[in-house]
Amino acid sequence: MEGLSRKLYLKLPAPTEADSRSSEARILSALRELGYEARMTLKVMRKLYPLCEKAGWQLTASLAWDGSCWVLVELEAGDTTREHYGLAVDLGSTTVVARLFDCNTGKCLAEDSAYNRQIAFGTDILTRIFYSKDQPEKLEELRRAAVGSIREVLEKLEKKTGIAPGGSIQLVLAGNTTMVHFFLGLDAFCVFQTPYAVQADRPGFLPAAELELPVSGYVYCYPGKSNYLGGDIISGMVATELYKKEGISVFFDIGTNGELVVGNREFLLCGAGAAGPALEGGVVRTGMRASEGAVERVKLTENGFELGVIGGGRPKGICGSGIIDLLAELFLAGWIDLRGKFVPEKSEKIQEKDGMYAVEYAPGLFFYQSDVDEFLRTKAAASTMVEYMLGEAGIGMNDISEFYVAGAFGKHVSKESAVTIGMYPDMDREKLINAGNSSLEGAGRLLLDKKILDELDDILDKMVYIQFGAVDDFLELMVAAQALPHTDLERYPSVMKKLEERSKMQKTVSKKTN
Amino acid sequence: MEGLSRKLYLKLPAPTEADSRSSEARILSALRELGYEARMTLKVMRKLYPLCEKAGWQLTASLAWDGSCWVLVELEAGDTTREHYGLAVDLGSTTVVARLFDCNTGKCLAEDSAYNRQIAFGTDILTRIFYSKDQPEKLEELRRAAVGSIREVLEKLEKKTGIAPGGSIQLVLAGNTTMVHFFLGLDAFCVFQTPYAVQADRPGFLPAAELELPVSGYVYCYPGKSNYLGGDIISGMVATELYKKEGISVFFDIGTNGELVVGNREFLLCGAGAAGPALEGGVVRTGMRASEGAVERVKLTENGFELGVIGGGRPKGICGSGIIDLLAELFLAGWIDLRGKFVPEKSEKIQEKDGMYAVEYAPGLFFYQSDVDEFLRTKAAASTMVEYMLGEAGIGMNDISEFYVAGAFGKHVSKESAVTIGMYPDMDREKLINAGNSSLEGAGRLLLDKKILDELDDILDKMVYIQFGAVDDFLELMVAAQALPHTDLERYPSVMKKLEERSKMQKTVSKKTN
Repeated sequence: MEGLSRKLYLKLPAPTEADSRSSEARILSALRELGYEARMTLKVMRKLYPLCEKAGWQLTASLAWDGSCWVLVELEAGDTTREHYGLAVDLGSTTVVARLFDCNTGKCLAEDSAYNRQIAFGTDILTRIFYSKDQPEKLEELRRAAVGSIREVLEKLEKKTGIAPGGSIQLVLAGNTTMVHFFLGLDAFCVFQTPYAVQADRPGFLPAAELELPVSGYVYCYPGKSNYLGGDIISGMVATELYKKEGISVFFDIGTNGELVVGNREFLLCGAGAAGPALEGGVVRTGMRASEGAVERVKLTENGFELGVIGGGRPKGICGSGIIDLLAELFLAGWIDLRGKFVPEKSEKIQEKDGMYAVEYAPGLFFYQSDVDEFLRTKAAASTMVEYMLGEAGIGMNDISEFYVAGAFGKHVSKESAVTIGMYPDMDREKLINAGNSSLEGAGRLLLDKKILDELDDILDKMVYIQFGAVDDFLELMVAAQALPHTDLERYPSVMKKLEERSKMQKTVSKKTN
Repeated sequence: MEGLSRKLYLKLPAPTEADSRSSEARILSALRELGYEARMTLKVMRKLYPLCEKAGWQLTASLAWDGSCWVLVELEAGDTTREHYGLAVDLGSTTVVARLFDCNTGKCLAEDSAYNRQIAFGTDILTRIFYSKDQPEKLEELRRAAVGSIREVLEKLEKKTGIAPGGSIQLVLAGNTTMVHFFLGLDAFCVFQTPYAVQADRPGFLPAAELELPVSGYVYCYPGKSNYLGGDIISGMVATELYKKEGISVFFDIGTNGELVVGNREFLLCGAGAAGPALEGGVVRTGMRASEGAVERVKLTENGFELGVIGGGRPKGICGSGIIDLLAELFLAGWIDLRGKFVPEKSEKIQEKDGMYAVEYAPGLFFYQSDVDEFLRTKAAASTMVEYMLGEAGIGMNDISEFYVAGAFGKHVSKESAVTIGMYPDMDREKLINAGNSSLEGAGRLLLDKKILDELDDILDKMVYIQFGAVDDFLELMVAAQALPHTDLERYPSVMKKLEERSKMQKTVSKKTN
């Protein structure tokens, strides 16, 4: 492993009159012999005595890369090279997730998460931005909330492994531009205000102590490309290695906002746009976060709805992946039509409620026509981003080798359902890849491979930003994409096939019941 | 001036939709265009908003060299390049002296000093070392005292100039090894304990905030060569440029300890030894520091002693320069002989007191035979260091182009008197150079000339340390050097001439009185 840190065991000769070099020189020249030109922090200088003598001059040095040189940030008695740890953090607006790595083997020893304490100041990012705009004390509250959330996760990792955060040398953090601004204590209004020039997008290596995090070396924040394409996406590039491949990939991170990268080792096009909160259950009346009691799986059978509920108890609402399943099933069963309108004659479950149709997907829980409409606008926005960008680049869907879906959405959503409603393109299912938490994954990769630092400059230089909102075309495409799965059904052969099969089955059923 | 800091005025384009680079990127790329690849501190990132906008994107960046790259440590609105300051500090065991520089012109704007507050823990270094040995809280007291003393001088400089210390970017500090250890918070017992391997001798650039000093960038501590040859001596090399010259120079810093360097651009021999506290008035019964009431000049005329007293009032004691004058005058007048023994028949001022002879040099103030003996041992130790080292190198006194005497001693002592008693060699007086506070001078030079950093490595590599105490020869030479001016009178032709002139005068006077 050639990561951002080193642990090196030094067996040094004790000072004699003939060799009365300083402890500092003795250690640094031994490191030089091992190929590391390093400097020593004041903290380590203050530890030299009596540590060196007591340890019989058998010492382990912790080296941290600071972006331009190696820094000796910790010194221990004896050989502790086996205890070589580092941390990767995904700082999400809702959840903070961290992994503890053994930096000798590259093995992830534990992963844990916590809610981002900033939620107390607003569940969505914009509320937090307005809350703290031009108010340094409030910005400081948000900064502390972020740091506190990270520390909470690090403590959980310590409980799991017995390894204290101070035992880690480096911490690599990935987050979107707003999250990184808050984490650094920077006003984030710039992220959403024209001309969208943010304050800092390449903060690099900062001393962990300055950021109030307990690792012994530095915190590296993943650089961002622009206001909407933050470090979490760049980290996703590293996780998927999209920028190294010959084949063209699509990388799509869909949440309230959608971030998209299309490219390969030759080119990288990127863009971002608002998808709306529908995908996270935000607008849907009975929508909820993916927590206990949320319907996350839906199947519509002859016997009605079969539900998968988080925690297994009574359903309390429906989360993003549940909604997509529900829509796919309603569509395949013909309970909603191509335009997403309820077909009330199809089932008694479709009732009129509050002046519109709604389907009772669970006892007392309804999914309304307005929910469907909202959701379809969102899915149209999302799928149009991909369509538009491929069009701009003159790339057909058949040219795509891999279609990565990142984030919680990619992790939980059923591929089949997402294709059925036209959210994902209709392509070989093995090309549709759930990239998982690629932000966290990329943070870990960088922690363990210093060479990636050089590649990041290349990635950022290569990325060409494409504005979605600015084009008339875009709206037109989006209207077409609001159909289920799409106005142009030929793009969805597998969905057409399913529809045919279902209608055959239904005919059979009809025949049987007749 | 190409020093350790830069101030650069940047007129940046305001962000537009077409150029929505981050403020950080905007500033750093403008610096790159000016030839400076820099990184930005967290503190500056936090200042970007609203500063950049308010300043209409006309900003002045303060860059500090950190030993391996440029760091943007301060950002100001408008063009403040004219206010470009830096500090040089000589951290002495008794006195802390600092200079404030205009880093654009290289001009020293003010100099001031304060007593080192560590004196409260012991006037001599050894007491302080024992006080704090293995006692971190006491070491911390000493560290705070050093820092407090420096801050006090910086405040005095602010009063004189109106320029706050925070307006300076870098601070270069020179001090002996013990002083630098205390300043950094390092136990200094190692300096005096065999095998004399100190803890840190190349601390380099450390963030000023970590050292609790108010400059915006870094504190650079001059590196040391060994326990007794500290940063103050290396700084003296830079001040005198001895290591650049073709002719061979001697650099001699005499106090309680003597530090010596002999060499030129080809070689550098160095050594150090205890001279004893006599030179600083430490052992002499009526000796005192060079403060108000101290006799600093002595002339012996027909009418008796003519005294120069610091502050002009009644004499209270005698300081180093006064002692050397006194001895020279006593010797030339024949009141003490070649071996330094009082010749009581020469004057009624020589009386028996406390079982020995003593001369009353001022009303009620006596200089005893034991004082003379002690002082001659000290001067013998000092002059023998030079003699021994030149002997080792096969260099004759005639080969010496310049003989620098550094420190307070060199500043105040009369060259003539020092030659007369054999403390200095008998050479052309213009070759005997008072180097003044060369430690402070070298600190200032480095502040203003970054290239010197590279030269320091050369200097340290080239220096060859010669042990004085270890050689039998040394003691033999020292005994010979205890005579006035030296057992080998032929080395002191100018003193012989003076003696002859005085004896002629006295004969004339005798004849007149007869």
